[in-house]
Amino acid sequence: MARALSFWGWGYADKFPGRAQRLALGGRLRLGLGIRSGLPRRPPRLDQIELRTPRIEVPSQLADFCTTRKEARIRHTYGRAYRDIVRGFRGDFGSAPDMVALPRKEEQVQAVLEWADQHGVAVVPFGGGTSVVGGVESDGAGFRGVVSLDLKGLDQVLEVDPISRAARIQAGATGPVLEAQLAIDGFTLRHFPQSFEFSTLGGWLATRAGGHFATVYTHIDDFVESIRMIAPNGLIESRRLPASGAGPSPDRLALGSEGALGVITEAWMRVLPRPRYRAKASVRFKDFERAVEAVRAIAQSGLNPANCRLLDAHEARLNQVVTDGSSVLILGFESADLELKDRLEQALAIALELDGQCPEGPVHRGPQDEVGSAGAAGAWRSAFFDGPYLQSSLVSLGVMADTFETACTWDRFPALHEALTQRIGEVLRRVCGAGFLSCRFTHVYPDGPAPYYTFLAPAKWGGELQQWAEIKAVASNTLQEHGATITHHHAVGRIHRPWYEQQAPAPFLDVLKAAKKSLDPNGILNPGALIPESAGGRPGPTG
Amino acid sequence: MARALSFWGWGYADKFPGRAQRLALGGRLRLGLGIRSGLPRRPPRLDQIELRTPRIEVPSQLADFCTTRKEARIRHTYGRAYRDIVRGFRGDFGSAPDMVALPRKEEQVQAVLEWADQHGVAVVPFGGGTSVVGGVESDGAGFRGVVSLDLKGLDQVLEVDPISRAARIQAGATGPVLEAQLAIDGFTLRHFPQSFEFSTLGGWLATRAGGHFATVYTHIDDFVESIRMIAPNGLIESRRLPASGAGPSPDRLALGSEGALGVITEAWMRVLPRPRYRAKASVRFKDFERAVEAVRAIAQSGLNPANCRLLDAHEARLNQVVTDGSSVLILGFESADLELKDRLEQALAIALELDGQCPEGPVHRGPQDEVGSAGAAGAWRSAFFDGPYLQSSLVSLGVMADTFETACTWDRFPALHEALTQRIGEVLRRVCGAGFLSCRFTHVYPDGPAPYYTFLAPAKWGGELQQWAEIKAVASNTLQEHGATITHHHAVGRIHRPWYEQQAPAPFLDVLKAAKKSLDPNGILNPGALIPESAGGRPGPTG
Repeated sequence: MARALSFWGWGYADKFPGRAQRLALGGRLRLGLGIRSGLPRRPPRLDQIELRTPRIEVPSQLADFCTTRKEARIRHTYGRAYRDIVRGFRGDFGSAPDMVALPRKEEQVQAVLEWADQHGVAVVPFGGGTSVVGGVESDGAGFRGVVSLDLKGLDQVLEVDPISRAARIQAGATGPVLEAQLAIDGFTLRHFPQSFEFSTLGGWLATRAGGHFATVYTHIDDFVESIRMIAPNGLIESRRLPASGAGPSPDRLALGSEGALGVITEAWMRVLPRPRYRAKASVRFKDFERAVEAVRAIAQSGLNPANCRLLDAHEARLNQVVTDGSSVLILGFESADLELKDRLEQALAIALELDGQCPEGPVHRGPQDEVGSAGAAGAWRSAFFDGPYLQSSLVSLGVMADTFETACTWDRFPALHEALTQRIGEVLRRVCGAGFLSCRFTHVYPDGPAPYYTFLAPAKWGGELQQWAEIKAVASNTLQEHGATITHHHAVGRIHRPWYEQQAPAPFLDVLKAAKKSLDPNGILNPGALIPESAGGRPGPTG
Repeated sequence: MARALSFWGWGYADKFPGRAQRLALGGRLRLGLGIRSGLPRRPPRLDQIELRTPRIEVPSQLADFCTTRKEARIRHTYGRAYRDIVRGFRGDFGSAPDMVALPRKEEQVQAVLEWADQHGVAVVPFGGGTSVVGGVESDGAGFRGVVSLDLKGLDQVLEVDPISRAARIQAGATGPVLEAQLAIDGFTLRHFPQSFEFSTLGGWLATRAGGHFATVYTHIDDFVESIRMIAPNGLIESRRLPASGAGPSPDRLALGSEGALGVITEAWMRVLPRPRYRAKASVRFKDFERAVEAVRAIAQSGLNPANCRLLDAHEARLNQVVTDGSSVLILGFESADLELKDRLEQALAIALELDGQCPEGPVHRGPQDEVGSAGAAGAWRSAFFDGPYLQSSLVSLGVMADTFETACTWDRFPALHEALTQRIGEVLRRVCGAGFLSCRFTHVYPDGPAPYYTFLAPAKWGGELQQWAEIKAVASNTLQEHGATITHHHAVGRIHRPWYEQQAPAPFLDVLKAAKKSLDPNGILNPGALIPESAGGRPGPTG
């Protein structure tokens, strides 16, 4: 990958817009959403960043693939949470790791763990560095230092089993890297989180990432056949199986373990042939509540669309999908072999019955047709993958932009949504003077939606993180009080830990601690992430 | 339930056939399968059974719902594994628990755990007592005694949420008991294991039971919204959520915990409206290999039939579905609201393309039609639920009848099936002089089937358990060597433990032990089941 990544903001460095473009963005923001931005500020330069002296030296046996170079340390300091981008934009990389390891073989991962375990050095597994929950940041308190263990050198598809439709993939492969290799055999994993271009299989597994499919196969969990994970105390490798009923699942311990129980090095994943048939439609609703009813009915119908994303009117406007005040439901079915007309029609019938309108009509595509991206669905898709870039630009304009997401049962959603709308609106006005909040459903289940909220507000230079922490706390407390999860697919990391500790049953947290003690007796793995009071660990800064 | 259950064999006592019927069964067996049976022996009588004196007395605070009565102890000695039925038929109840608790409130469950924990008494959670893996039998070695904790008094549907389609159900409710209560609100759980009439929700959850749906929602796991489980060291109650990405799932720790980590007392389960549309067909294949190919193609199609069970020629004959040497694939779709014609036709097209024949034609039923059970599918269904009764009759005729089941990836199935056919055939001949082996697929996945094997053989009176242990070891070793799981949905219990310990990654077994130590520090819960070397526990007899 010759194209340089931003060291402080989202994605490719060359996608950060120039001053004039950002000025124009500020204007659109003021006109469109009533959010006042500041003048565009200049992004930081690598050569201006100052880091503390590394607390550890590269040991000779790791010298081939480890470094204490400043740029590598800077690039492994943060994920891409709002607070990470704000600090990065300021040039503040105070919690940079002391050393970066870039293993190209599993034995090298093992060697790092052994050395770190012996020497009291914390190890933070690092994939794409796109965590939005403080998942890869550790100040190393209680340890001799911190090594960031970047898995991206382990990026191969090692085996493909075309009969069972599964592939053995190394954890460091990013979305495009693994898809390119799978394509050779005509397969695809079809896991497309917003971070797809940069994030890695290992990161997806460790954080229970949410992906492409809006129903049934929503989390990466559902594609796992087996996982290989190295811990200081041994290797956990599950048997390759389509399913098993032999005790609690070992894979389910690795899924969501956030680098705190082991380093995932590879997994057998279920893959699919590329879809050749597609059927899509977008449905507009005047009324959000009716749209929610329609989505519930479709989620409970057993039709299981691949795409079933509801955008409220704000979200539709923000992403320029429609601007007439409608909520928009984007429906899609896909298959390698089957005509889907019938299923789309059944889903559309449900939506139209509940006052939806489908002005563009359904679109069907077979194997002969060009795959295009026209209409509302296409507009949504391009906005979706560019969303995080927008956030980095907004930070440079002094505008706070962040998201939070959850899941709850259908019976609880109306009260949750009302409370969030009211309380986030109130805190944005109080703390920032103004604000914008939008909602979409990223995934839906028969028993509830996974709502995803975006908020924008004018921020105070230098005071953003305090402002943000206040807003984040209101959002998280509201989720907590309304029986929703603190995260549907962004993981716990350090940012969500205070609420996770309220939500997870206390004896289960004790089990997690016991599991960590068993796998990682010295607590060197990602201290402070996920697991409370792990040896030597403590939560990172929350503001 | 006034109708009496057999104390030694499967199900209702009055369904055990008389001598003449059993003689006729023996004749059919000899003619049909070439298996020679003995003369029907008389089943044991309750009043002939002798038990050791209870090692513990009922403490006054538990006296309202605990007993040391002989019949209660006999009825809680075993599950319904082959070895259980053989010992029961012999009148051997040597490992009877010392006391039986029949709580009607959760506080009483709590009280039993507290008392047992204080007094060094082992607690074996007991649902329907239908375990086929030695899941509910403990001799209490290392403990002052054993109490069987029968949850069937906690059998209420406590809440129904019709919006989210979920219900809060107590763990002791059997299939019919919970279905009758759900039906009041028009819902059904649609979990129909072979033990449906007798087994309980808590048992299904603790053993990761396999149910009605052949695809997607195969295990009870997939219907769980949240679980409430009491352990000596605290209560684990997960939040009611359609999905979450916050750390490893607490529900997935309870699922498959087999009473060794806690006592499941209730769960919020996803429910469904009763299906009103059905579409079914049965497809015959001359060649089993082609049938397997067809099932694989359907499993990988995304059509997700509710029913997709393949019977090999032996299984079809054994269950009198067809007797012409064909393998039979039973396909079914069901929905509350949707026409399914299209989907059945798509699935049938795949099967016919691979040399299947559908002489009876597809059957569609809408809301107006009577739900019948004609044809191969109906024949199969009635044989399915009566299968375990047959086993008890065969034991009385000196015929060994048992099953084992597994799952593996598609690429491994042909070699596994060949090895099992050859090696089970060989060991049946060597140990019993003759034998019969049949195979069906109970559930199928895009990446592999869950094959289920039945074997029959003439047994030696008094030597059955040694013979059986030899055969079981050959079966289990073959699964082990061919990369298959030791169990897809029968759990580990005590019978599968030696192979489970080979299959589960060693550091994961250490995590399970650490989890047990955290939740159940004195190891009183179901010692010897699932978890190796738990405090005071050891495996039960295997022969």
